[in-house]
Amino acid sequence: MRLSDKKTDEFSRISEVFSPLAAGYPGAFGLSDDAAVMQLSPGYELVITTDTLIEGVHFLTEDEPGSIAAKLMRVNLSDLAAMGARPIGYTLNIALPSAIGDQWLEAFAAGLARDQTEFSVTLIGGDSVTTSGPITLTITAFGDVVCGEALRRSGAIAGDIVYVSGTVGDGAVGLSAATGGLESLSVQNRDYLRRRYTRPEPRVALGQKLRDVAHAVIDISDGFVADLNHIAECSDVSIEIEAAKIPLSDAVRAALNNGVASMDHVLIGGDDYELAISVPDSAKNDMASLAKSLGLQLTEVGRVCQGFGVRVLDKNGADISPAKKGYVHV
Amino acid sequence: MRLSDKKTDEFSRISEVFSPLAAGYPGAFGLSDDAAVMQLSPGYELVITTDTLIEGVHFLTEDEPGSIAAKLMRVNLSDLAAMGARPIGYTLNIALPSAIGDQWLEAFAAGLARDQTEFSVTLIGGDSVTTSGPITLTITAFGDVVCGEALRRSGAIAGDIVYVSGTVGDGAVGLSAATGGLESLSVQNRDYLRRRYTRPEPRVALGQKLRDVAHAVIDISDGFVADLNHIAECSDVSIEIEAAKIPLSDAVRAALNNGVASMDHVLIGGDDYELAISVPDSAKNDMASLAKSLGLQLTEVGRVCQGFGVRVLDKNGADISPAKKGYVHV
Repeated sequence: MRLSDKKTDEFSRISEVFSPLAAGYPGAFGLSDDAAVMQLSPGYELVITTDTLIEGVHFLTEDEPGSIAAKLMRVNLSDLAAMGARPIGYTLNIALPSAIGDQWLEAFAAGLARDQTEFSVTLIGGDSVTTSGPITLTITAFGDVVCGEALRRSGAIAGDIVYVSGTVGDGAVGLSAATGGLESLSVQNRDYLRRRYTRPEPRVALGQKLRDVAHAVIDISDGFVADLNHIAECSDVSIEIEAAKIPLSDAVRAALNNGVASMDHVLIGGDDYELAISVPDSAKNDMASLAKSLGLQLTEVGRVCQGFGVRVLDKNGADISPAKKGYVHV
Repeated sequence: MRLSDKKTDEFSRISEVFSPLAAGYPGAFGLSDDAAVMQLSPGYELVITTDTLIEGVHFLTEDEPGSIAAKLMRVNLSDLAAMGARPIGYTLNIALPSAIGDQWLEAFAAGLARDQTEFSVTLIGGDSVTTSGPITLTITAFGDVVCGEALRRSGAIAGDIVYVSGTVGDGAVGLSAATGGLESLSVQNRDYLRRRYTRPEPRVALGQKLRDVAHAVIDISDGFVADLNHIAECSDVSIEIEAAKIPLSDAVRAALNNGVASMDHVLIGGDDYELAISVPDSAKNDMASLAKSLGLQLTEVGRVCQGFGVRVLDKNGADISPAKKGYVHV
C-alpha cells in the first residue's frame, strides 16, 4: 500500500502531493508504512463503503481535477450518510495514464484537501499505479456509528411516510448541462445544474440526525425510482410516490418547461446523492424540525404500503411509473 | 457501493457471483446496502491496507482468473501480515472490459473463495464498473491487532539482527518463468518459480507471532534491498546484509548457475511477499522456535547498525550493493 508505486522519478512527487492529506491522522503513519491503523471509540462500529469512478463514464476527461476529486469523495460520503455514519477517513487508489502531470495531480489533491476540511475526513492510505487505460479512481471511505444504529434500507414499514432531501433530477439534467447541452436555459440555471452533477452534496449531517428518526434510508445514486425500489425490496414493502410532490429545482423546472428534459430525468436519472427516507407517520414534526435546523428541504413525496415495487402516481392517482427503473451505468 | 453497477443484464449476474463470498459476514448485509458495518473486539484496533493490480503490469492477460484473484488477495494480506494483523475481511473494486464474460467472473470468484477459506477472510463490499482499458482490480483489506501492538517499519535499533522468511528472489525470477522464459531450467523448477510469482504466500501466521518478538517488519514487495531501505529510513538506522546468507530456493540457485538470472533478481527483484524482520539479538531462540512451530524457514541475513542506507556485503566484506534499490513498477 503506497501512494507512490510509479516510476522512480515520480515516487517522491506523488508522495509529496498526497502525504500532507494524511498529516492529520496519526494511524496513517504519513503513508509510509505497510498499512494504516484505526481505533474506534468504545461502543462504536465501523461503516465502510467504496466507489470507483472511471474517466469517460463517471466524469469527463476535461473536468477540472479538483472537481473530479470532489465527486469521488462525495459519492462515497453519500453512502456513509445513508448509513447515518460520521465520516472519519478514506483510502485512495489511483490508476493514472503516464501522461498525467504534476499540475493535474496537484489540482486533484487540492480538491481532496478542500473536502477533507469540509467533511472532517483524512486520507489514511492508498495505492497508485500507471494505466494504459482511462483514469480509474477508487475511494474506500470509513465512518463510525453507535453499535447497532446504522441506518439500513431494510427497515421501512407499511404506513411509513417517504421523504426526500433537496431536489430530485438535478444530477441527470446536470449531466446534459455539463456536456454542453441545455442551451435554451439561462446561464445561471445551466451553471447550477452542472454544479449539481459535478459536485453533489452528500447529506452527511442529515444522515447522522436521521438515526433517531428514520426506519430506512438510501442515497439516490442509481435513480429515484430504482433506489426507492431497493428500499421496497430490502424492506419487503411497496412504495407509492406522488409525482406532483417530488421537489424540483427551478432549473429542472425550466428544463422540463422548455422540453429539454423529461420526467424520466427526474424519476430514473440518478446521480442526485440526496437521501430518500422512510419514517413513521409520527415523525412528521421531527422531520420539520430537522429541515429547519439543517436549512435543508425535506419533502414528503409518498408512502409505504404492503406489497412490492414502486408506483409513481399522477394527480389523479393514475400509475405513471417509468418502464425503466434507473439509469444504466456501463 | 455495489458489486453490480454494470449493464442491467449483468446486474443480477455479478451480484449472483459475488454475494456468496459475503455470506459469512453479517455486516456485509449480502452486499445489498449502501455500506458494510464492522465491529471490532474490545481492545483491538483496525489495520487497513489497499493495493491495485492492473492487467499487463501486475498480472498477465492470459493468467488464469482464479490465480489473478489469489495474487490480488495475497499482496494485500501480505501487508496485513507485515503489521502483525489478523485478517478479517476485504472490499473489492473491479473495473472490467465489457468483453469479460461469466466464465472469467466465476473463475475469479472461485479464486477468491479458495483464499477466503485459507486465510479466514470474507468479502464485505465493493463496486464494479466497466472500463475501456485494462482489467483494474483493487482490494482493500481489513485486519485487527491489539491496540498499540501493530508492527511497524520504524522500530529497528542498532544491534538488531535482520531475518527474512522463506526464500528471496523467487518472485522476480518467477516472472521470467511466467512469461515463458527460463527454458534451460527443469519443468519442476519453472513450475515452482511461476507459482511463487503468481501465487505468493502471505506470511499471515508469522506476522501475528512476530508481535511479541520483532522491532520492525516489512513485506518484500518492492525489492529486498528497497524494502530493507524502507526499514532503515523509517528507523533511522543502517542495515548490513551478507549476500551469502540470503536464502535462495533450489530453483533460483539453478537459474543463477545457468546464467538465466542474476543476483539483481534477488536483491532488487521484489514480488516475494516474504517478511524482512528486525529483532533484538536476544530473540534468536524465539525466532528458531517460531521457524520450527510454523514449519517456515527464518534466516538470519544481516544486522542493524547506526547510520543510514542498506549495504550488501560479499564474503570478504566488500560492498556489492546494487546501483538500483528496487524494481520500478510503472
